[in-house]
Amino acid sequence: MRLIIDTDTGIDDAQALLMAFNCPDVEVVAITTCHGNVDVEQINLNVLRVLKTVDRFDVPVFGGCKASLVGDRKTSAHYHGLDGLGDAPDAHAPPADLIHGEHAVHALVRMANENPGEYTLVCLAPLTNIALAMRLDPGFSKNLKGCYIMGGNYEGKGNITSCAEFNFHTDPEAADVVLREMTCEVTVVGWELCLKAAFSWDWYEKFISQESPSANFMRRIEGSTIDNYYSNDAKLKEGVTKYTTADQLAMAVCLCSSLVENKFECLASVSLSDGITRGQMIPDARGRAMMHAKPEQRCVVVTNIKQAL
Amino acid sequence: MRLIIDTDTGIDDAQALLMAFNCPDVEVVAITTCHGNVDVEQINLNVLRVLKTVDRFDVPVFGGCKASLVGDRKTSAHYHGLDGLGDAPDAHAPPADLIHGEHAVHALVRMANENPGEYTLVCLAPLTNIALAMRLDPGFSKNLKGCYIMGGNYEGKGNITSCAEFNFHTDPEAADVVLREMTCEVTVVGWELCLKAAFSWDWYEKFISQESPSANFMRRIEGSTIDNYYSNDAKLKEGVTKYTTADQLAMAVCLCSSLVENKFECLASVSLSDGITRGQMIPDARGRAMMHAKPEQRCVVVTNIKQAL
Amino acid sequence: MRLIIDTDTGIDDAQALLMAFNCPDVEVVAITTCHGNVDVEQINLNVLRVLKTVDRFDVPVFGGCKASLVGDRKTSAHYHGLDGLGDAPDAHAPPADLIHGEHAVHALVRMANENPGEYTLVCLAPLTNIALAMRLDPGFSKNLKGCYIMGGNYEGKGNITSCAEFNFHTDPEAADVVLREMTCEVTVVGWELCLKAAFSWDWYEKFISQESPSANFMRRIEGSTIDNYYSNDAKLKEGVTKYTTADQLAMAVCLCSSLVENKFECLASVSLSDGITRGQMIPDARGRAMMHAKPEQRCVVVTNIKQAL
Amino acid sequence: MRLIIDTDTGIDDAQALLMAFNCPDVEVVAITTCHGNVDVEQINLNVLRVLKTVDRFDVPVFGGCKASLVGDRKTSAHYHGLDGLGDAPDAHAPPADLIHGEHAVHALVRMANENPGEYTLVCLAPLTNIALAMRLDPGFSKNLKGCYIMGGNYEGKGNITSCAEFNFHTDPEAADVVLREMTCEVTVVGWELCLKAAFSWDWYEKFISQESPSANFMRRIEGSTIDNYYSNDAKLKEGVTKYTTADQLAMAVCLCSSLVENKFECLASVSLSDGITRGQMIPDARGRAMMHAKPEQRCVVVTNIKQAL
Ligand SMILES: [Ca+2]
Ligand SMILES: [Ca+2]
Ligand SMILES: [Ca+2]
Ligand SMILES: [Ca+2]
Repeated sequence: MRLIIDTDTGIDDAQALLMAFNCPDVEVVAITTCHGNVDVEQINLNVLRVLKTVDRFDVPVFGGCKASLVGDRKTSAHYHGLDGLGDAPDAHAPPADLIHGEHAVHALVRMANENPGEYTLVCLAPLTNIALAMRLDPGFSKNLKGCYIMGGNYEGKGNITSCAEFNFHTDPEAADVVLREMTCEVTVVGWELCLKAAFSWDWYEKFISQESPSANFMRRIEGSTIDNYYSNDAKLKEGVTKYTTADQLAMAVCLCSSLVENKFECLASVSLSDGITRGQMIPDARGRAMMHAKPEQRCVVVTNIKQAL
Repeated sequence: MRLIIDTDTGIDDAQALLMAFNCPDVEVVAITTCHGNVDVEQINLNVLRVLKTVDRFDVPVFGGCKASLVGDRKTSAHYHGLDGLGDAPDAHAPPADLIHGEHAVHALVRMANENPGEYTLVCLAPLTNIALAMRLDPGFSKNLKGCYIMGGNYEGKGNITSCAEFNFHTDPEAADVVLREMTCEVTVVGWELCLKAAFSWDWYEKFISQESPSANFMRRIEGSTIDNYYSNDAKLKEGVTKYTTADQLAMAVCLCSSLVENKFECLASVSLSDGITRGQMIPDARGRAMMHAKPEQRCVVVTNIKQAL
Repeated sequence: MRLIIDTDTGIDDAQALLMAFNCPDVEVVAITTCHGNVDVEQINLNVLRVLKTVDRFDVPVFGGCKASLVGDRKTSAHYHGLDGLGDAPDAHAPPADLIHGEHAVHALVRMANENPGEYTLVCLAPLTNIALAMRLDPGFSKNLKGCYIMGGNYEGKGNITSCAEFNFHTDPEAADVVLREMTCEVTVVGWELCLKAAFSWDWYEKFISQESPSANFMRRIEGSTIDNYYSNDAKLKEGVTKYTTADQLAMAVCLCSSLVENKFECLASVSLSDGITRGQMIPDARGRAMMHAKPEQRCVVVTNIKQAL
Repeated sequence: MRLIIDTDTGIDDAQALLMAFNCPDVEVVAITTCHGNVDVEQINLNVLRVLKTVDRFDVPVFGGCKASLVGDRKTSAHYHGLDGLGDAPDAHAPPADLIHGEHAVHALVRMANENPGEYTLVCLAPLTNIALAMRLDPGFSKNLKGCYIMGGNYEGKGNITSCAEFNFHTDPEAADVVLREMTCEVTVVGWELCLKAAFSWDWYEKFISQESPSANFMRRIEGSTIDNYYSNDAKLKEGVTKYTTADQLAMAVCLCSSLVENKFECLASVSLSDGITRGQMIPDARGRAMMHAKPEQRCVVVTNIKQAL
């Protein structure tokens, strides 16, 4: 399996990247970056720190879009720390000039054209780069083997607003373009699945206490987030009884499709109105349009994974 | 239990009304009508036919609003038949002049003021009358004992559009006013619960085959709908493997609160945008506003009922 | 000419009311109040102060709606003072119990039914009461002789937002119902006309310096607004080179139709979206729908008045 | 003056291109194409026919975007004919392979980077290419000398809907990005100016009767449009008493800035809601934000040109 990973490397992206690098039979062909958790310049640096952790500077990193399709970029820097990686800086972090000169959108279009049907795209960020690649090259998505998306929802449950998940809310127009127009197989890991598939804190303690470069890195960057958000606030801790993953879950579904226990097909789009539902994913699984939809118009939405994870 | 029932009598309203009339210890104080399934004039006639079935012309019927708050009334006449009751006319139907002269909105305000804390309101139609009563008398809802609403949804699943349930979609602005401003206890029976609590066709066959004036009436008015929508279309029948109730379910929850197995509290509002989500109910159960909400600002949403029904 | 005036008495409403009372051959039949510049309770008191000024307590005042059709009432208390009349209180102001017990909406419906074709309605406030009267009695507007509205715009120029005028923005849904459904002749005095028909400050000085109970009252209530907004801020004064009237202008057009120099007919509606245009009036003067519209569906929009005013 | 022209060559674009080619001291550096009046493939062919008319195949043509930022492309093929140029085909039309291989968006970014501050961009089409160039290269607009846009409106008057002009309505999101984010001087020629600056039919008769390759070409492609829309329909002709230009007017303002008689500065954006105002330009000339806006955030909107044209 040959992956191109589009990311706005926060903490969960970092872990998802490490999962991919540590998985046998998986080749990470390239990493593209997109605005999201923090500025794209910081995200570029964050990706390089992940590469350093696994000593894989051979994988090219392409810097991508700095703003959503229609602007008004929001960041969630408060959650993943000001630098998106828990504000646990590395004095010997790799420098920005390791980022390739080619723009992420161009690189995506070029790679897909060079090896049609070869690459699986894993999207862990707002979908700005992907939508632009589709606009610049209408044949882009046809050249992909498949696409896994962390983002959206299928029961209207949001995390950044009542109705919307962060990645989709940050660029609803891009998400809408990708869901409606992509012609390769698209698999969506939405926010409700993240909630359902959350881990116990006991499990997390064991997981994060392993000894390996990757686990050490995660422990380092995730420490203050866990402290800030859960440990110190009794009431919040009570409410957040689980360790919820997002990008990791999408990566797991990509790397190991047998994890999927339930899923459904639908025509998906995104609410683009200015009102409260802006950014909500709309999965039409039953309407007349869906009945007559061609396979390449449909998305697969995962609704349950095996507990064995 | 003393009920005021607001209805746009279609077939499911008719059955819900019959349930109330046949329930011991329940007094139906008044019936108010609202545009919805068909024109309010036809709905008035339909209510009278239900009263005739149970011989209860002593219950006053007040005619209500002919259009939603902002106009653009949609009807679903295609589903419940052109007359809303399966196009199975009664040659001896009661005449329209049995409807009271007082407008439904005035009657609602007057009755609630005459006996504060006494009446439970059961809403089986678009919420136009109720929202107007609240606008004309800001103290209206405080005077109610409680309010049960058939309408809306809590996972974004619609029946009239991808995102919206019929009653809420027909008057989203009214539904929004009611959910956000009502201060008595509000219990919502939304579309997802209707889907979950659907009956098998076997059960339905037994149910509809009883011998009683009410069952005879239902068999008569529901016959062609069942035929038109399910029996004659193999593919559709395959999809619709259950007999789904709506107004009946809300009435059941009102009449027998012990049926409720699961529910949650939330701040609820309705998407009023012009886009695809128009009419969708937005249940905010986790946000900061909810955490600080007063009890009278919250709604109860039922998510499961006991299978014993 | 027999007028019913619906008002949210701020300063410009007060002046418009005085114009009507001082105009020969005009009978003010009733005044209805609506939320808007300030709370409806304060507005009721403000109207009574105007009645006191002209000693006309014989004119009945009916209190109306406290919130817009869909809620979220905004007030402009900052502009007309905290009490809507320049914070220049009258120690001997008439008490609230002079307001009639009947609700404004009921009174509107009743009066129009009692004397069909007799009354001209002048709307100087958000249109909540009027829209509700139309919903409760679909024949309401047919019973009016005509209707003059201060509100909206025809070139998208707003005063409370970029796109919307205050009265329409405060209750866009009500404005939409009134413009689309009213069947008597409707004349709109929008914000662009107010800007065009503004007076020089020199004119205003002469006008406000007259000696009469009405002028004395106006001088008293408008003093601080003029000071606060124009006199003390050189930059703002530079920009606001004119004395702009709003409700006065609508009243003038009603009282003296020969003032109108230019106007056009259109199908009018109001933008109800959540975005930047919310509350903007949309005058369709050229589309296919307009070509085929019946006279009673059209509105008249005034675009120029004679300078002689 | 060195121009890059972005066009969806319909008839008015064709004439605007001819104006540029026939103007001394003007160099047309490149032409980029965008979906709009018809498919971009057809537009490419149409541009080549214009180049043939003036024998200027030396000017490179770059094919651009096939759909608006968020999809849902509308075409106005009915107005400019099925082929966008009046359905008056040329048996010896130049073939598509004269179009360059580089994508318009790449070409725009590349050229602006190669000669910063050198090129003036004239936009006669939906703004998809331009918005994408700005997303891919945030410094793109800073590298331009200036930008002239045919599109939008400043009094809410539309031609394709009540509120929206065709170019902006076809890609509202792109227009919003360009107006809000472009940092070079932007001059907007909106629909109200087109209406104001329309020519008499007498003038048009003289104009179109000239003898030159360009006039011959225009006569040929515009003939059937004039016939279809005006000559044959007495009622319509009555309404359309003028020959209205659009792209030609924007080109004229660009080529000859002394034509401008009135203009104003504003912060401009575009209504992106799903409602009736979608695509309307919102010129904020008076709000607080405008008062504090930096020069590079502002747009210039032309409101009058000299009659001498
Ligand atoms: Ca991410
Ligand atoms: Ca019903
Ligand atoms: Ca007023
Ligand atoms: Ca054009």
